[in-house]
Amino acid sequence: MIYADNAATTRMSRTAIEAMLPYMSEYYGNPSSLYSFGQKAKEALEEAREKVAKCLNCNPWEITFTSGGSEADNQAILSAARSGEKKGKKHIISTAFEHHAVLHTLEKLEKEGFEVTLLDVHSTGIIDPAQVAEAIREDTCLVTIMYANNEIGTIQPIAEIGKICREKGVVFHTDAVQAAGHIKIDVKEQNIDMLSLSAHKFHGPKGIGVLYTRRGIVLHNLINGGAQERGKRAGTENIPAIVAMAAALTEACDHMEENAARMTALRDRLMDGLDKIPYGELNGSREHRLPGNVNYCFEGIEGESMLLLLDDKGICASSGSACTSGSLDPSHVLLAIGRPHEVAHGSLRLTIGEDTTEEDVDQIIQAVTDVVTYLRNMSPFWRDLVTGKRTHVFSE
Amino acid sequence: MIYADNAATTRMSRTAIEAMLPYMSEYYGNPSSLYSFGQKAKEALEEAREKVAKCLNCNPWEITFTSGGSEADNQAILSAARSGEKKGKKHIISTAFEHHAVLHTLEKLEKEGFEVTLLDVHSTGIIDPAQVAEAIREDTCLVTIMYANNEIGTIQPIAEIGKICREKGVVFHTDAVQAAGHIKIDVKEQNIDMLSLSAHKFHGPKGIGVLYTRRGIVLHNLINGGAQERGKRAGTENIPAIVAMAAALTEACDHMEENAARMTALRDRLMDGLDKIPYGELNGSREHRLPGNVNYCFEGIEGESMLLLLDDKGICASSGSACTSGSLDPSHVLLAIGRPHEVAHGSLRLTIGEDTTEEDVDQIIQAVTDVVTYLRNMSPFWRDLVTGKRTHVFSE
Repeated sequence: MIYADNAATTRMSRTAIEAMLPYMSEYYGNPSSLYSFGQKAKEALEEAREKVAKCLNCNPWEITFTSGGSEADNQAILSAARSGEKKGKKHIISTAFEHHAVLHTLEKLEKEGFEVTLLDVHSTGIIDPAQVAEAIREDTCLVTIMYANNEIGTIQPIAEIGKICREKGVVFHTDAVQAAGHIKIDVKEQNIDMLSLSAHKFHGPKGIGVLYTRRGIVLHNLINGGAQERGKRAGTENIPAIVAMAAALTEACDHMEENAARMTALRDRLMDGLDKIPYGELNGSREHRLPGNVNYCFEGIEGESMLLLLDDKGICASSGSACTSGSLDPSHVLLAIGRPHEVAHGSLRLTIGEDTTEEDVDQIIQAVTDVVTYLRNMSPFWRDLVTGKRTHVFSE
Repeated sequence: MIYADNAATTRMSRTAIEAMLPYMSEYYGNPSSLYSFGQKAKEALEEAREKVAKCLNCNPWEITFTSGGSEADNQAILSAARSGEKKGKKHIISTAFEHHAVLHTLEKLEKEGFEVTLLDVHSTGIIDPAQVAEAIREDTCLVTIMYANNEIGTIQPIAEIGKICREKGVVFHTDAVQAAGHIKIDVKEQNIDMLSLSAHKFHGPKGIGVLYTRRGIVLHNLINGGAQERGKRAGTENIPAIVAMAAALTEACDHMEENAARMTALRDRLMDGLDKIPYGELNGSREHRLPGNVNYCFEGIEGESMLLLLDDKGICASSGSACTSGSLDPSHVLLAIGRPHEVAHGSLRLTIGEDTTEEDVDQIIQAVTDVVTYLRNMSPFWRDLVTGKRTHVFSE
């Protein structure tokens, strides 16, 4: 099997599993307890917090552990909205190609009377910081723009956006679920006020994430109850997962440069191979994208059929994000970067990982080439293109 | 070490760990993906859902996986409130001794204009169903009453309360975090509409829980985003934890009678031993309590000192709930059952588990007896009691 869906989820690393196990069976105490056995868990919790903070370049007390990226996104956005509301500021800026954890939370706020500006996305899949500057108003309480897109992997000019928001005094949140552990994040240098990440995207466990909130930004609870996480996130701390996440993130950050260089080379090799398929095109910028992300549209192809045939060849790939699978709608991300409907249905996302080999990449290229040819031969839509009844969107 | 804080958290069972591991390292695929590798995870997810449903006697599609008990409580209460609000029903009934995940969520709703009736708790720690019947009004949208109390372990007449709520057409939610896996739950027979549970209270992993919602009850999201869990709870499914929870709950339910009988005998032995300490008293009903729960107040004792000295003797115990540790306030549960402030500060919760032995119990009795004597000898407060400057609350 060649696993090329690392943007959906990753295999837990040995390091993460080994860090996790002792806290499941041995040091299982509740960190809120008084006895020394619980204090071991408490120490592990704070050590993990320090490790995560170090990777983001923030203070440990600015880290809140959540159950994952979606919860962190929800809490960040709702929290900033509640704070804004109190000051009569009910305008939020985001983009049209955010993750649904962001978009659906914004829709909820719109129903409550918030006004949301979704910035248009350039065909490269990159937001221009000037768009943010132009959109900021007196009543803007939050700018939330993803660090890197989950479908097409394009990396946003976060530092520039952060600088603008800081200057204008607007809270800046970034969903860094796809970026964390893969590319460098420095919340201080980049003027990020709030940031979400999820462990299972960088070989940590599922069900655990982080919400970084800069000191001075008020954080409102999403989950109320016990006094865990400085009273900002109730529920018994998931120590095994927290410890494993910290271990995975530390490992990812320690080897980031070499991993990124290796994966970028493989990614480029993969793109070079897929570029040879006629009437197909890479989605999003070739340069400003995550080391592991490749995303193509092929004319005359149904995404689902392509995935099933690739699966037959032992290749795990996806069409858009895992969170929206089962939906028959074309990807909102591809529509946002201007792909027409008929092409947006035929997208293929291949996200390689640290253990992907050159051989894997070559196998993927061959398999995709074969599958595209096969499917086109069967497709009436493709026949229409070939016979000129329809016009091509892409060039040969 | 003798671990007697199983109400705070439990050691993960072998069964749960073994069920979990393959999904961390081997079948780590995203269940929302199309390829067969992800479908393995999807199958595991649905099999786990069936197992959990079987333990509660409900349908699999009535189960929503959450990150734990607190999230489930928050979602249940807010969801019922949102549904009620739409019908102009903004009155909620609960009790004064609920978990903070319930009480703080209710406080949040009160700030939004909801009216909350907190039922008084009898000194036995049991709510009378008649109190519920009397409190229900035309505009009541929710009754939320815990299955068993987390501090004093008293079990509520859930079936009777459920019957009243069903007859009056009011949604009935129960926080069953302490009950699940320990005593029988049958949501159909007991007319429960919504129920929360948490895996780490029955030897499952931390960071995973369940919200049961009866078919026909609308469930509103707490976490918005992807379409996981029928669109009711966004975020990549935590398959390893879900599978492990189902395994732990199944094991707990399969051995419930024998475990309960064994633990009840040990609990009674423990109570018999602690009863001999003068000027102390069991908190809550002796009979209607969880098999593993023992909770005493001792006059003239500071809870914290007692815990630290017990820790020196290798015994892990708690004073009230883990979620409120660090707080200097007396337990709201003990105040609710009518304990005066000076006594509520000196409570000791001992919650035994499936692996507690008779020898452990005898060691605990000896240790508590010694610690109480030692602390009283040092206490000016106790001297005042002995010399008659203060009057005793409890009898000898």
